[in-house]
Amino acid sequence: MTEATWATGASFTGALNEAAKLTDAAIDRLLVVPGGFEARVVEAMRYAALAPGKRLRPFLVLASAQLFSVGRRSALQAAVAVELVHAYSLVHDDLPAMDDSDLRRGRPTVHKAFDEATAILAGDGLLTLAFEVLSHADTHGDPAVRCELVASLAQAAGAAGMVGGQMFDLIAEEHPELDIGAITRLQRLKTGALIAFSCEAGAVLGKAPADLRMALRGYAHDLGLAFQIADDLLDVHGSAGETGKPVGRDAAAGKATFVSILGADRAQSQAALLVRQAVAHLDLFKERADLLRDAAHFVVDRRT
Amino acid sequence: MTEATWATGASFTGALNEAAKLTDAAIDRLLVVPGGFEARVVEAMRYAALAPGKRLRPFLVLASAQLFSVGRRSALQAAVAVELVHAYSLVHDDLPAMDDSDLRRGRPTVHKAFDEATAILAGDGLLTLAFEVLSHADTHGDPAVRCELVASLAQAAGAAGMVGGQMFDLIAEEHPELDIGAITRLQRLKTGALIAFSCEAGAVLGKAPADLRMALRGYAHDLGLAFQIADDLLDVHGSAGETGKPVGRDAAAGKATFVSILGADRAQSQAALLVRQAVAHLDLFKERADLLRDAAHFVVDRRT
Repeated sequence: MTEATWATGASFTGALNEAAKLTDAAIDRLLVVPGGFEARVVEAMRYAALAPGKRLRPFLVLASAQLFSVGRRSALQAAVAVELVHAYSLVHDDLPAMDDSDLRRGRPTVHKAFDEATAILAGDGLLTLAFEVLSHADTHGDPAVRCELVASLAQAAGAAGMVGGQMFDLIAEEHPELDIGAITRLQRLKTGALIAFSCEAGAVLGKAPADLRMALRGYAHDLGLAFQIADDLLDVHGSAGETGKPVGRDAAAGKATFVSILGADRAQSQAALLVRQAVAHLDLFKERADLLRDAAHFVVDRRT
Repeated sequence: MTEATWATGASFTGALNEAAKLTDAAIDRLLVVPGGFEARVVEAMRYAALAPGKRLRPFLVLASAQLFSVGRRSALQAAVAVELVHAYSLVHDDLPAMDDSDLRRGRPTVHKAFDEATAILAGDGLLTLAFEVLSHADTHGDPAVRCELVASLAQAAGAAGMVGGQMFDLIAEEHPELDIGAITRLQRLKTGALIAFSCEAGAVLGKAPADLRMALRGYAHDLGLAFQIADDLLDVHGSAGETGKPVGRDAAAGKATFVSILGADRAQSQAALLVRQAVAHLDLFKERADLLRDAAHFVVDRRT
């Protein structure tokens, strides 16, 4: 495993790709298919966690960890944990009883490639594994830091975070009258909490002072919302070929989104404003945070 | 919260009931229903985790912790965590794509009382919360102990434990030719691993020496198998009224079970043998382990 970190002035695209490669290699080493009938669930876990993807959250962990000179080995453990949680959430979100999606990242979803029971279990297995990874001594020499990461990830992923946001989202489908405040809160829970964990994990690993940690939290908050607005815009303007998943589903479901409430133009300028705000939170870090600045621009300019 | 522990000679039934009350009170305090649409998932989590039940696993945690003079507050945290994982596994196991069960502990299952999407999310939320509970400072003053519990629970619950066993179990339905060795391994994964965690958690919290920990592991292993054989016998001889869930499902599904392979009489004597073995592992603890001895007899004599 490389211990090298990204030089000042490193290309964002190069760093994002490297983060994806490092994360996938670590997940590949972690998810060894056992003998016995239980092999099937691990195959499904691999299918989900190693699916093509940007690995934006692992990148955010590695880039934020580098601000505090955290070793790559430690940072990669947290990066893997957050990607496992993200992967699990997609597997369960795609299930027939949830979003009922057959296509994800251009491939059949897990319940289509395997079956529904295997998809439920694979999601459960990925979520469980994330906590095993964080609790491992490789994550940090100080067990208090590992416990803090376990607690933070559980809060970000649980009923007061992502799971709560998914519940909110399902109920929101029956409430097209929801206003911008409600949709903002929904997205903060559903996607924002895990993105915030990704940005803060580096600060936790580096035992960063409170002001720097708050700066990353502010960055993550604005980034998460900008990311979601961009997602809503892609659902309206993107193509299934580009995004690798069905588009136009929000409008078809009559769901309130940033775009349905604000209109595409105002949504676009709101996303741009959030990116400027996100970047402003990084001033304290000077040029060492350039990769995170680039990431903020990337999330609203992406096509997938 | 009481800090009192059970006196030597305490009644097993009384201790089991007290463990259930303490656990339910702690879960009740933990699962506060929030405002907002996400309230629904927390209501479902409460419905699942506070459903009527024996709370055998929390009892095993408290009784094993008492062997090492672990404080009730610490032990109760681990007891709650294991019960949350047990509750989540039942919610997902009952889903239409899994066992498709409408009745659990005499009440509608979560996907019947709520809906399927809420049941999936409630299970996810319970599993996530278990790790948050273990990582909390209330569980133990030493974060290394908390990390060890997180790692152990993740291993017991994940693809190399319970989730793997559930996968194995689903595939086993298509393989009625499985022999006693395969069924033993299946049950060790599916129910044995979490029972073993329950018995070992007290030793971890008490930083017990290896020989005592191994003794508890041996006890848990035999107890878990005896428990499962008793479950199979109840599926054949029990009534839905007594067990609170449909019976005769294994035979109807053509599943290989301890009873289908050994016959009811040999299964019964095998369970009795395992109880004697389980109890023998406790010799080191003398009369201080009487409650655990009683628990072993209870699991094979129970009617529910």
